[in-house]
Amino acid sequence: MDERVREHAEVLVDWSARVEEDDDVVLSVGPDAHELAVAVAEKLGERGANLLATYSDDEVTRAYLRAHDGEFAEATHEKALLEATDVVLSLGGERNTSAKADVPGETRRAYRTARAGIREARYDTRWVSTVHPTRSLAQQANMAYEEYQDFAYDAILRDWEALAEKMARVKERLDEGSEVRLVSEGTDLTMTIEGRTAVNSAASVAYDSHNLPSGEVFTAPYATAGEVTFDVPMTIRGEAVRNVRLEFDDGEVVDYDAEQGADVIGDILDTDAGAKRLGELGIGMNRGIDRYTDNILFDEKMGDTVHLALGRAYDACLPEGESGNESAVHVDMITDVGENSRLEIDGEVVQEDGTFWFE
Amino acid sequence: MDERVREHAEVLVDWSARVEEDDDVVLSVGPDAHELAVAVAEKLGERGANLLATYSDDEVTRAYLRAHDGEFAEATHEKALLEATDVVLSLGGERNTSAKADVPGETRRAYRTARAGIREARYDTRWVSTVHPTRSLAQQANMAYEEYQDFAYDAILRDWEALAEKMARVKERLDEGSEVRLVSEGTDLTMTIEGRTAVNSAASVAYDSHNLPSGEVFTAPYATAGEVTFDVPMTIRGEAVRNVRLEFDDGEVVDYDAEQGADVIGDILDTDAGAKRLGELGIGMNRGIDRYTDNILFDEKMGDTVHLALGRAYDACLPEGESGNESAVHVDMITDVGENSRLEIDGEVVQEDGTFWFE
Repeated sequence: MDERVREHAEVLVDWSARVEEDDDVVLSVGPDAHELAVAVAEKLGERGANLLATYSDDEVTRAYLRAHDGEFAEATHEKALLEATDVVLSLGGERNTSAKADVPGETRRAYRTARAGIREARYDTRWVSTVHPTRSLAQQANMAYEEYQDFAYDAILRDWEALAEKMARVKERLDEGSEVRLVSEGTDLTMTIEGRTAVNSAASVAYDSHNLPSGEVFTAPYATAGEVTFDVPMTIRGEAVRNVRLEFDDGEVVDYDAEQGADVIGDILDTDAGAKRLGELGIGMNRGIDRYTDNILFDEKMGDTVHLALGRAYDACLPEGESGNESAVHVDMITDVGENSRLEIDGEVVQEDGTFWFE
Repeated sequence: MDERVREHAEVLVDWSARVEEDDDVVLSVGPDAHELAVAVAEKLGERGANLLATYSDDEVTRAYLRAHDGEFAEATHEKALLEATDVVLSLGGERNTSAKADVPGETRRAYRTARAGIREARYDTRWVSTVHPTRSLAQQANMAYEEYQDFAYDAILRDWEALAEKMARVKERLDEGSEVRLVSEGTDLTMTIEGRTAVNSAASVAYDSHNLPSGEVFTAPYATAGEVTFDVPMTIRGEAVRNVRLEFDDGEVVDYDAEQGADVIGDILDTDAGAKRLGELGIGMNRGIDRYTDNILFDEKMGDTVHLALGRAYDACLPEGESGNESAVHVDMITDVGENSRLEIDGEVVQEDGTFWFE
């Protein structure tokens, strides 16, 4: 076994999920994540945790969903499982990232709705999602398999403690600030962040951060005004999207266009009222991620990028009892800030051409 | 997909587990049983059942067990899951049937003991175990892959209703009878079955039968006397065992030898007091199984064979409230009755050279 698989498992179990003796752990295994599952099981054994492995396979789900009449009941056994679970570790690893491409959208939505209680129960655990570098992800990233492995482990096997300290400085500035302004080619956008709390997303439940890799600081902006261009290409709902431009007024999208994929953006904006407002402003700070791979888990954490999400805001960013932007969607889009750009908080430049004030 | 995979799924879901709408189903998937899992998921979708897939992988279990200090706690989340579950469908499909060969016996026993409550909860569901024909099982059976697929589907895709009717006649004779005598080369054994109830194991929970394939009638004998030779070769605890001979007096093994594997038999007999007594007398009636493949799930149901198990008796064979033979083990061994043999109940021949009285 590649030694990096073992290191990945160790970071996941110890740094990310903080697994302790007697923790009841659900290990969700993708069909091509077998090797990582073995390495994680070894770590869980060492820590004296209790292990139940589940199988997360898009081909199984596709077959089930396509055969179902669409009147889904809540799976009470899965909910009972998660309510009794301390930690959920999801090891993504599909063989084909398009395996569910022919499941009707209506069926997906009905299934998602029926699973609301299951999702809530999962969010109440110390959950962490990661991916095992597979050939299918390499293909999606336009990379050779070994090249992709190097890329993925550079992103995952970081000095998370050092990065967490660096990100804490950015979080502090965001927490103290009132207004953010982002300026770059095709972008001049202002957002209010007064009263909102930033999350130092350092790939650990100890930081309210549930992705490995992570490496971003994010908050929940409002009252957005101006325009923004997302120049990092991506695939949204199976369609290529390029150079989306959004124009905001009084917090809402009032105009949009795109070089490619404008229809998808239109569909998203039409979902509900919240889909026209921002739910997230995120600053990517993981410099182990040095290029776009069409996988949001990696792309949005890329160093020298900023991303914004249309739709739902995360509770962690909101004052106790206050509900932020609500929506059925949360769609991230990314802009490169490595050149000809600056990020200001209350008029002070905190990042210019990708360099933070403290660098 | 091979049409037989879909037929296998249909038999499993409809005939074996009697899945109904809104049943909470756990689908336990071996790493090489993917294709059958997809076919079963489709059937579960059609039936409107709720699906949670778990991953049953010996390499994951091995890594976990070898790393653990051996002080296992009960996995309360897995127990909670099974207590809320209606149906458990286990799709065996390992890549290597020896994948756990180097897990110390002590660790296995400790793990097994810690999981007693989980096993009980599973037994309280409509559980069915089957296997997907894999290359690893083909290898164990000394067969080519396609040859093994033909063999396995011949065993699984039977007219179960017709076989159940035939087996009902044998069950009736056993239920009414008091003493069974088995005579063949190296065998002359008598067993009492008075007061015991035979199970018509027709591969369906409706018949208290939890294996697919099945095709045996079994009961719980006692007061065994005489000798028996098991001439069907098998692997027990990883060791080849050939021509085991047991001598019984007053229900207990008083002498034993074997052409090969006598040590394993000695270890089993030493487990506890119940390991020296029989827990099961089974009559194999699945003529789709026409040869030995070193897989007990198939071998013990082979047409024209009789098997006996040292150790634990099944509750289904015992009068309400009575406990039969108790033991930590249940080890089946098989004898061919196709030639020069007869099976008598209360002095009447019910099977001679493999032919039943009604055939």
